[in-house]
Amino acid sequence: TDVLPASSLRDPYINDPVRPAALKVHSEKPFNAETPAPLLTENFLTPNDVFYIRNHMPVPHVDAQSYELEVSGVGIASPLNLTLQDLQEQFPKHCVDVTFSCAGNRRTDMEEYKHVKGLDWGPGGIGTARWCGAKLVDVLRAAAFDISQGAQHIQFDGMDVDVEGNSYNVSIPIQTASSPEREVLLAYEMNGQPIPVDHGFPVRAVVPGTTGARSVKWLARVVASEEEAQGHFQQKDYKVWTSNVNFGDALFDAPAIQEMPVQSAICKPTPSSTIPRSAEHIELSGYAYSGGGRDIARVEVSTDGGNTWQLATMLPRESAPPPPHSFWRREWSWVLWSAKVAVPRDRAEVDLCCRAVDVAYNTQPESPAAIWNMRGLLTNSWHH
Amino acid sequence: TDVLPASSLRDPYINDPVRPAALKVHSEKPFNAETPAPLLTENFLTPNDVFYIRNHMPVPHVDAQSYELEVSGVGIASPLNLTLQDLQEQFPKHCVDVTFSCAGNRRTDMEEYKHVKGLDWGPGGIGTARWCGAKLVDVLRAAAFDISQGAQHIQFDGMDVDVEGNSYNVSIPIQTASSPEREVLLAYEMNGQPIPVDHGFPVRAVVPGTTGARSVKWLARVVASEEEAQGHFQQKDYKVWTSNVNFGDALFDAPAIQEMPVQSAICKPTPSSTIPRSAEHIELSGYAYSGGGRDIARVEVSTDGGNTWQLATMLPRESAPPPPHSFWRREWSWVLWSAKVAVPRDRAEVDLCCRAVDVAYNTQPESPAAIWNMRGLLTNSWHH
Ligand SMILES: [Mo]
Ligand SMILES: [Mo]
Repeated sequence: TDVLPASSLRDPYINDPVRPAALKVHSEKPFNAETPAPLLTENFLTPNDVFYIRNHMPVPHVDAQSYELEVSGVGIASPLNLTLQDLQEQFPKHCVDVTFSCAGNRRTDMEEYKHVKGLDWGPGGIGTARWCGAKLVDVLRAAAFDISQGAQHIQFDGMDVDVEGNSYNVSIPIQTASSPEREVLLAYEMNGQPIPVDHGFPVRAVVPGTTGARSVKWLARVVASEEEAQGHFQQKDYKVWTSNVNFGDALFDAPAIQEMPVQSAICKPTPSSTIPRSAEHIELSGYAYSGGGRDIARVEVSTDGGNTWQLATMLPRESAPPPPHSFWRREWSWVLWSAKVAVPRDRAEVDLCCRAVDVAYNTQPESPAAIWNMRGLLTNSWHH
Repeated sequence: TDVLPASSLRDPYINDPVRPAALKVHSEKPFNAETPAPLLTENFLTPNDVFYIRNHMPVPHVDAQSYELEVSGVGIASPLNLTLQDLQEQFPKHCVDVTFSCAGNRRTDMEEYKHVKGLDWGPGGIGTARWCGAKLVDVLRAAAFDISQGAQHIQFDGMDVDVEGNSYNVSIPIQTASSPEREVLLAYEMNGQPIPVDHGFPVRAVVPGTTGARSVKWLARVVASEEEAQGHFQQKDYKVWTSNVNFGDALFDAPAIQEMPVQSAICKPTPSSTIPRSAEHIELSGYAYSGGGRDIARVEVSTDGGNTWQLATMLPRESAPPPPHSFWRREWSWVLWSAKVAVPRDRAEVDLCCRAVDVAYNTQPESPAAIWNMRGLLTNSWHH
């Protein structure tokens, strides 16, 4: 009789770690879970044990002692194989406070308008951590990378693989990868700790200002190439098609999501909260973020669903002191904000709502209708 | 008897040149005029004689022979006085195709929703030219500029002065000024010609990806400073306040407009055009542009005012070949687009409408209501 090999019986998720209890789970295998919104505004830096987890595949087992990162490709004259110790000792340690957001963050708000396909992320698919590691530009220099040889993209391969053996493979444009001011890291620390297993132990690419999907966890390879990565999550997903395109339709070639548009959300109070009849004011708190290093110009809140607005107070960032040679005033992290609004006396229900504007004066759309897309990505309409 | 000095009788606009007849004039003194929209999509590079003109003050008379540009300020170890010939001969000539847009472009669309204050710009306060000159980073290097001395801004002073003797004075952040990839120029050529008088002869700052107001004409001084420029057009204007702020209200400190949000407009057909009863299709053309070097991801058009949409065709840019050491795929210029739509048979009037999305997936707001501001700046709602 035919006997199945033992490997096919083994649960591919056997290396997945035990997860913190605080997270709101959307999928067990692969594991996907968001931070309950009220926890987000408790800290500028989201603690590791409540940071949202977005896994596309089983968590790989990686041994820190034998770990090696391969650096190769077009224009790399001296390919490298770097151990964790090499990364830590051969390159200056650089720290950046970076907000990651899943491109599917707030998908439920788009789903409410019209059905979309994807995990049911609320507003907690976002978080900010202090990442430390080697700068990608320093590692590329050590590999004698010559940009004039024609590389247009830097690909990142994860050690996570799907059932067909394809590893997680995405890329970022060469100008993001090779610009010192973009501060791309090969990180080995998250909030002062070794990176937790679910967040990419021992080494994760960290691409500031860019959607979380490009910050590859369990990083195996850095490959310079003329072409964009051909992996599923670069080519077939994490693209925003128009409202006209529905499931099963032919797809035109939309750009891979890199920088994200301006976003904000109310974290407190949570939807359907009740207000005591005696309350005169409601205290609100939330976050605002924009991609590409664009700072937030302002946040506004409304108690009447967006007819009238008042300014929220943006809280100062608790960022690490800028490194000595950084003069780039890009902002890679969210701003937390708070607001105190008078309770309207003329109605039984209050429709709280927020919106933000970034320094390029980009705005959030009024409703999901204008940005509906079948995958429910980049839902950044006014948050009710 | 008191006799007024001759200078006070003299028209301060006496040096203003004769203007091309094709422009649509909004103000004679200072001279402000836009390009008729149908001319915009005739050429990727807008010809000099139809390029929109936005003057804030009388045009200064500048003699090319005696012209000197002063470079000084915080961290400038070797202040420079550069003649036009110095700029042309001591520095490599660098050319960039850059779209300028007045921050007031399309103000009429906001005015239609609710009264705003400013010149009545339609959609023609925009244009693209091939600018050539010395790179600001090269000039700063020649001036032995040391960024670590604390300069946070580069100020530009124009030779144009108001009645009180204040020159046009604005600034850009140091990271824009000092980043080679931002390609800021001290330009002396516009579309292969010496810069026309109305566009800043003999030298104009050219700040790609940034609102036109920072690209100072008749450039007198480049000054590195810790503070932002204190001039009127940096501090009191070219800021976008919220919809809550109206004329006479106290102003909170909004950021000076630098990068612009994503924009698009239909140039043909013009509003109120009639369509022959026999026509089966309408041909549309227009432009789309986003600030900060963000390329356009797509343009959509609608024949029912925005209920349903179809993709427009983006025309390839006719840009100069990239300079040998530029690997930055930023796009500083607009894309022109065309579309062919079926004439709807079920109505007497067709509400044509367009909208664009940039590569950061920023979107244009649906209506001016969401972005109304008393100065009518950055009107980038869907264009009908
Ligand atoms: Mo994601
Ligand atoms: Mo302007």
